[in-house]
Amino acid sequence: MDQQTYETGLKIRSEVLGKEYVENSMKSADDFNKPFQEFVTEYCWGAGWGRPGLTRKERSMLNLAMISILNRPHELKLHIRGALTNGLTKDQIREIFMQVAIYAGVPAGVDAFRQAREVFAEKK
Amino acid sequence: MDQQTYETGLKIRSEVLGKEYVENSMKSADDFNKPFQEFVTEYCWGAGWGRPGLTRKERSMLNLAMISILNRPHELKLHIRGALTNGLTKDQIREIFMQVAIYAGVPAGVDAFRQAREVFAEKK
Amino acid sequence: MDQQTYETGLKIRSEVLGKEYVENSMKSADDFNKPFQEFVTEYCWGAGWGRPGLTRKERSMLNLAMISILNRPHELKLHIRGALTNGLTKDQIREIFMQVAIYAGVPAGVDAFRQAREVFAEKK
Amino acid sequence: MDQQTYETGLKIRSEVLGKEYVENSMKSADDFNKPFQEFVTEYCWGAGWGRPGLTRKERSMLNLAMISILNRPHELKLHIRGALTNGLTKDQIREIFMQVAIYAGVPAGVDAFRQAREVFAEKK
Amino acid sequence: MDQQTYETGLKIRSEVLGKEYVENSMKSADDFNKPFQEFVTEYCWGAGWGRPGLTRKERSMLNLAMISILNRPHELKLHIRGALTNGLTKDQIREIFMQVAIYAGVPAGVDAFRQAREVFAEKK
Amino acid sequence: MDQQTYETGLKIRSEVLGKEYVENSMKSADDFNKPFQEFVTEYCWGAGWGRPGLTRKERSMLNLAMISILNRPHELKLHIRGALTNGLTKDQIREIFMQVAIYAGVPAGVDAFRQAREVFAEKK
Repeated sequence: MDQQTYETGLKIRSEVLGKEYVENSMKSADDFNKPFQEFVTEYCWGAGWGRPGLTRKERSMLNLAMISILNRPHELKLHIRGALTNGLTKDQIREIFMQVAIYAGVPAGVDAFRQAREVFAEKK
Repeated sequence: MDQQTYETGLKIRSEVLGKEYVENSMKSADDFNKPFQEFVTEYCWGAGWGRPGLTRKERSMLNLAMISILNRPHELKLHIRGALTNGLTKDQIREIFMQVAIYAGVPAGVDAFRQAREVFAEKK
Repeated sequence: MDQQTYETGLKIRSEVLGKEYVENSMKSADDFNKPFQEFVTEYCWGAGWGRPGLTRKERSMLNLAMISILNRPHELKLHIRGALTNGLTKDQIREIFMQVAIYAGVPAGVDAFRQAREVFAEKK
Repeated sequence: MDQQTYETGLKIRSEVLGKEYVENSMKSADDFNKPFQEFVTEYCWGAGWGRPGLTRKERSMLNLAMISILNRPHELKLHIRGALTNGLTKDQIREIFMQVAIYAGVPAGVDAFRQAREVFAEKK
Repeated sequence: MDQQTYETGLKIRSEVLGKEYVENSMKSADDFNKPFQEFVTEYCWGAGWGRPGLTRKERSMLNLAMISILNRPHELKLHIRGALTNGLTKDQIREIFMQVAIYAGVPAGVDAFRQAREVFAEKK
Repeated sequence: MDQQTYETGLKIRSEVLGKEYVENSMKSADDFNKPFQEFVTEYCWGAGWGRPGLTRKERSMLNLAMISILNRPHELKLHIRGALTNGLTKDQIREIFMQVAIYAGVPAGVDAFRQAREVFAEKK
């Protein structure tokens, strides 16, 4: 493990997904999934999100489109919250999901809209 | 239907997924899904799992990777239980899902780890 | 927007998915998802389903196969209901999902059968 | 192997995909893929296509939609030829692929149209 | 068809994918695929890309990520060219594809990088 | 970058995919894809393949199943060669692809068998 990349990853992950969420993930990790938690933190959040070249807002845009298509509702909801934190507006989120519907099909769009509405409803 | 392949399939399916589970599936089958239950037993479990050339443990390894990527959580949990029955350790399951995360993406890995932890929690 | 295509779409959508369901979707729409609801009605239901060349029954057959493979259970259940409305029998639905199992894999078939049985159970 | 199901499968496969094509597949099979050729002939063509409940034309319709979405161009072209043999018109094939574009996204539609045009061009 | 949306779509499509490419697509269209060409122009390019809320550069970013994951190399190469036209730099394209590799898996990334390099090589 | 993980990755990658192939990949890398080459070497081959818990043979088995399903023929052929290097027999490769056909559908199996036969033909 590259300690510095890991630290960068932990910092970015906490800023995007929320400190509380990340601390809970880490605290609840056991022998089984701890190596995965560390891997994701270093690889995805440190070596990936930590790179220059795209803003966090742009990375959130990509993630909303990608995770909708990959059909992972639990992760999608996390990243809708993260996208709001990174400054995307609801109008931009709508436009992303409409483009998803055109390129990945209407059912992918329907699911993405439903999940977004669930996230917005919790927020209130 | 090849009766012998069907019988082989029923036997293997019961040994891997549990006698009780398979009996329930068969008993609860109605006119609508009975032909499918029989087809899966013969085709998937008899003509597939019944072949020589790979051990059951190896077939379970493949299934965990494949069903994670195919994104079918209900089936994945069944096959995580089957994998434990077939002798895979939790450490091996972790390694499989880490490889899934690298080749099929982090969200596929996150879901697989969550579902495995749910199975392990039930077992206790 | 092409008003006539939209009207056609609204009519077909209501006939296939049920007037009540469509009215609820439309009524519960807010600033966030209203443009999407309108887009789907015009594009998918008007410009798509409104075309000649295939019967509604044939379009329902295609949808059951496609949405199973696309792995969208919420939409699949809607369209199983729609397929019954469009005149598909349970036996035809079974045959479609058996063909899905062969071409898209057994877990896709298992999920489709389970979701169909849930829809049939509600209907009683 | 159920010999009768295999024979049925071989007959249907030859009628749909062409005698010459199937004979070549069988003749060119070696130790490596022969078990797979036999497996596909028995289960996919015999136990699947051999079932009552859907016409061959309907099975071809489903296959065009499914194989487009599964993104397997080589198989898709085979089944476009088979669909013409089974009596689908070019207009019906167009409608199927337009519905694919709506439900599975525009790029899936674009590829399906291109592959169909290649098949039609060969035929002339 | 909404004539104005179609005209908007034709204009945007030509600006993004190149006038020559779009004219060729339209000219070579025959009875079979003409309705699809018009449908894509009106809905994907007019009703989709024609919406406010995201810049063309942002829409190109989304498309590169989405079409990589949807695994449609022919369309991906078109949209890599379009992305350069819309002002994305090679460095931004690299970052998008690295994020694809993390979220959709290394093989998706490998293919995207290879296809991008083919596009860049043609350009020289 | 963690230099040691990178070195481990480079060594394993060369042993599995062939020294010549990896040296060519590295030599032909330019500003655009060099960061990706390094990223894949460190994370996929070092932090992934470098982990204990599964043998290389087992990792190759998983990869053949996963990459077939992910539908990436170029990568699949590389990993079929790697699987032979890691000690998988042709009979085991056949069994893996038959299991792929059952769980991910016949067309995924057909493509995997064709690609394997192309690799075997080159080898002679």
